[in-house]
Amino acid sequence: MYWLKEQMGSVGITCEAVATGMQEMLNGERIDLPPVILAQLGTSPNKKTLLVYGYVDVEPADKKDGWKTEPFKLAEKDGQLYGRGVADNKAAVILWISAIEMLQKHNIDIPLNIKFCFEGMAHCGSLGVEWVLRKRSEIWLQDVDFVCITDGQWLGNRKPCLSYGARGVCQFRIEVSTEGRDLHSGVHGGAVYEPMADLCWILDHLTDVTGKITIPGFDKLIAPPNEKEQELFESLDFDIEEYRKSIGASELTGTSKVQLLTRIWRCPSLSIHGLEGGYNGGSCKGVIPSKAFANLSVHIVPNMIPDRVNNLVVNYVNMFWPKRCSPNSIKIYPQHCIYPWITTYSLPHFEAANRAIRHVYGVDADLTRQSRPIPAALILQHFTGGSVIVMPLNSRDDAREVVNEKLQLRTYIAGVKTIIAYLFELSSI
Amino acid sequence: MYWLKEQMGSVGITCEAVATGMQEMLNGERIDLPPVILAQLGTSPNKKTLLVYGYVDVEPADKKDGWKTEPFKLAEKDGQLYGRGVADNKAAVILWISAIEMLQKHNIDIPLNIKFCFEGMAHCGSLGVEWVLRKRSEIWLQDVDFVCITDGQWLGNRKPCLSYGARGVCQFRIEVSTEGRDLHSGVHGGAVYEPMADLCWILDHLTDVTGKITIPGFDKLIAPPNEKEQELFESLDFDIEEYRKSIGASELTGTSKVQLLTRIWRCPSLSIHGLEGGYNGGSCKGVIPSKAFANLSVHIVPNMIPDRVNNLVVNYVNMFWPKRCSPNSIKIYPQHCIYPWITTYSLPHFEAANRAIRHVYGVDADLTRQSRPIPAALILQHFTGGSVIVMPLNSRDDAREVVNEKLQLRTYIAGVKTIIAYLFELSSI
Repeated sequence: MYWLKEQMGSVGITCEAVATGMQEMLNGERIDLPPVILAQLGTSPNKKTLLVYGYVDVEPADKKDGWKTEPFKLAEKDGQLYGRGVADNKAAVILWISAIEMLQKHNIDIPLNIKFCFEGMAHCGSLGVEWVLRKRSEIWLQDVDFVCITDGQWLGNRKPCLSYGARGVCQFRIEVSTEGRDLHSGVHGGAVYEPMADLCWILDHLTDVTGKITIPGFDKLIAPPNEKEQELFESLDFDIEEYRKSIGASELTGTSKVQLLTRIWRCPSLSIHGLEGGYNGGSCKGVIPSKAFANLSVHIVPNMIPDRVNNLVVNYVNMFWPKRCSPNSIKIYPQHCIYPWITTYSLPHFEAANRAIRHVYGVDADLTRQSRPIPAALILQHFTGGSVIVMPLNSRDDAREVVNEKLQLRTYIAGVKTIIAYLFELSSI
Repeated sequence: MYWLKEQMGSVGITCEAVATGMQEMLNGERIDLPPVILAQLGTSPNKKTLLVYGYVDVEPADKKDGWKTEPFKLAEKDGQLYGRGVADNKAAVILWISAIEMLQKHNIDIPLNIKFCFEGMAHCGSLGVEWVLRKRSEIWLQDVDFVCITDGQWLGNRKPCLSYGARGVCQFRIEVSTEGRDLHSGVHGGAVYEPMADLCWILDHLTDVTGKITIPGFDKLIAPPNEKEQELFESLDFDIEEYRKSIGASELTGTSKVQLLTRIWRCPSLSIHGLEGGYNGGSCKGVIPSKAFANLSVHIVPNMIPDRVNNLVVNYVNMFWPKRCSPNSIKIYPQHCIYPWITTYSLPHFEAANRAIRHVYGVDADLTRQSRPIPAALILQHFTGGSVIVMPLNSRDDAREVVNEKLQLRTYIAGVKTIIAYLFELSSI
C-alpha cells in the first residue's frame, strides 16, 4: 500500500490512506483491516469525473507449491512477467499510473478528473470498503460520472471484452456433531452414528453431479432467461474446447457455448472447498471424529438476494436433516456474502470503452459477464450512481491466481494504450 | 524402549533389542522401525513356558489438546495416575515387572519360564513384529505353551474380563481427481465436475446411517451367528445406558445389549477418518480442489480375510463409480490390514486365568471379545501354537487414548495381584 502511495505520488497524485475498521478473526483476535487508498487527480469543473477502482491484495503463494521464480519478486522471461499478483490484479493498478505518467511526459492534458479507490481486501469480499465509501458517498463520490474497474479476464486470447455483470457468493460452514468426544473407530465403530458420514450424506443431497443445486425453490430466485442475451452469448468468441483444455478438464458440464456460459454466468453453482475433522495425512490413527465441518460456497446470480439464498439453504438443510434419522446435530452457518452485480451494456460508457479497444486491438470487444464476484462493482454503482464498467486487461493466457501466475508484457503495453484511449473516448461523450 | 530394558534388567531379566526393519514413509523417506524387545526369565525344563506380550507406543498427545497435566510426565492425583500411555498400555507392561519384583522380594520361586515380547508399533498394526517372530518361530518360540496379552479393556467398571477374540481392520484411501489443476470456484464453478462432491457421493454409498456396510456380498464373509455366544453376550455385565453415557453419545445404533455387542464384536463397521483436498480453516479462499482424498477403515470380524475384503471393497467402488456419471477418476488404495482373531474360550488356560481373577476380585471374569484389533494375538497364536488369552487390566473408568488418559491406582495394584495369581494358577494346569 505504501509503495503504491509512493508510485502515485511520483506522478503528482496525493493519496489518503483511509482506515477501514477492524475484523474479528476466528480465534477471537481483532485485527486492523488494510486501509483503502483514496486519491484524486484534477478537479476541473469543466471535466467529467471518472472513478478508477483496483486492488493489490493477492491469493497466497509459496515457492514450495511449484513456483519457478520467487513468487513475491517480479521476474521477466521471454516476454512474460512472473509473480504473485501480476495478473490478479496489481498490473491493472499500475497501468493507470503508467498511463498518467505517459500523458504527463508528453504534456497532454488529462481530459477527465480522475478519482482512485485502491484496496487490499478484494479476495476477502472487499471487507471494509463499503463502510469507507458509504461515509464518502455524500461528498467525495457525489460528482462521479463513470466508474471503471480493471478486473476480470477475457473469455479467450483473441478478443478483449467489456463486462456488465458478475456473480455474487454466499459462503456457508456446516457442522455435524455428536454430544460426545472423538472415539477410536476400532473400539466403538458400529455402535455410534458417525458425524463424518452424516456430513457426506447432507453434502451429497445439495447438488447433482454437475454441481447444479437441487434445493427446491432455488431456480425461482434466478432472473428468467433473456433471449437477447442468449443471442449475445452465441456471438461471443469463446471456444469451449479451448476453455476445457486451458483448465485441464476431461469433460465440461455444458456441451454448447451458450449452455456453458449460461452455467457460469446466469446459474448459481455450489462448491465444497474442504472438509475438516478427524485426522489426515495417511496416519494410522483411526479416529471417529466427534465433529465434522464443511466449507462451501454458493455462487449466486441476478436476481438472487444473499439473505434469501441464506434462508433457503439453511432452511433446506434443517428441514432435510431429519430424513437422515441420525441422532447427531447439524448446524449451518451463513458466512460472508457478496451480491451479484449487473448493469445494462447499451450505454454510451460501453460504446466509448469499445471504441478505445478498437483503437488498440482493431476489433470490437466482446460483451461478457464475469463468473467471479467483483464486490466493488455493486458498491460503487450504488454509492456513485455513476455508470460502472468492468474492463478486464488480461487475456486467458495471462494466468491468474495460479502457481507461476504471469502476465504477457504485450498485454501490459496494450493495456496502457487502451486506458489512454478510453480516457479520451470517455471525455468525448 | 531403553528405559524398559533398564527396568527389566533391575529384576534380572536380560533383554535383546531386535531390529524390525525399515518402513517407507509417504514422502518416500525410509526410516528404522523401533526394535522389539525379546527377553527370557527362567529356562527350567520342568516348568511350562508363558510368553507375555505388551507394547509401549502410545497415541499422539499435546498439552494444547486440553491436558490438565503434562501428557508425557506421570502425575498422581486422588488415586489416579495421569499421562499418555498409563492405561494404553504402558502400565500393563510395567505390571509384569512389578509382579516379578514382588515374587523375588519374598523369595518365591516363579513357577513358569517367562518370555517377553514388548514392542513399539502396536498403534500402527505391529509393523515389523511378525517379521521378527517368524524368524524366531523355530527356536525361540518353539517351547511356548501359553501366551498372555495384557491389553484391551473391561466392558464396564464392575467385572474384569478375559477376551477370546478381536476385530481386524482393512484401511483404505480413496482419491477422486480431475486431470486438471485446482480452480477458482467463482470463475469455474458450474462448468466442471467437482472431485470433492464426487467423493462425498461415493462415501455416502458405502454405509447406511448406522455405519452398516451396504456393499453387496459383505455379509456372506461373516461367521454365522452362534447361539451359544449370543447366550454368552446376554449374560455379560454390560449396561448399554452406562456405555452410552461414558462415550457421550445421545443414541446408539443398537437398543439391546446383545444387539450392540454383536455390532461391535461380530459385525464389520466402516469409519471415515477424514477428507483432504481443498483449503480449510475458515479462509476466504474458494478453491475447487482438483484432487480429494478420504481415509477410511473397515473393521473386520471372523471369518473375514483381509484380501477378500480388499477385493470386495475395491471392486465395488470401481463397479459402482460409473453410476455417478462423472468424468473424474476414482482410485481406491488398500492400506494396512490386520486379521481378526478368535480362539476358543473353553480351555484350561481361560479357566486358570478366571481362577486368578476370582482370587483378586471375588467374581468370575466376563468372557468378551475386544472390538479393537490386537494384531499380536493372531501372530503369536500362529507362531507359537500356544493358547493365547487376552487379559485386560483396565476398567472402563481407566480412560484410554483420550485427553487426560488415566489409570486408577487400585487397578494397577489389583493388576499386580492378578498376574501373580495367574502365574500360579497357570503352573497348576
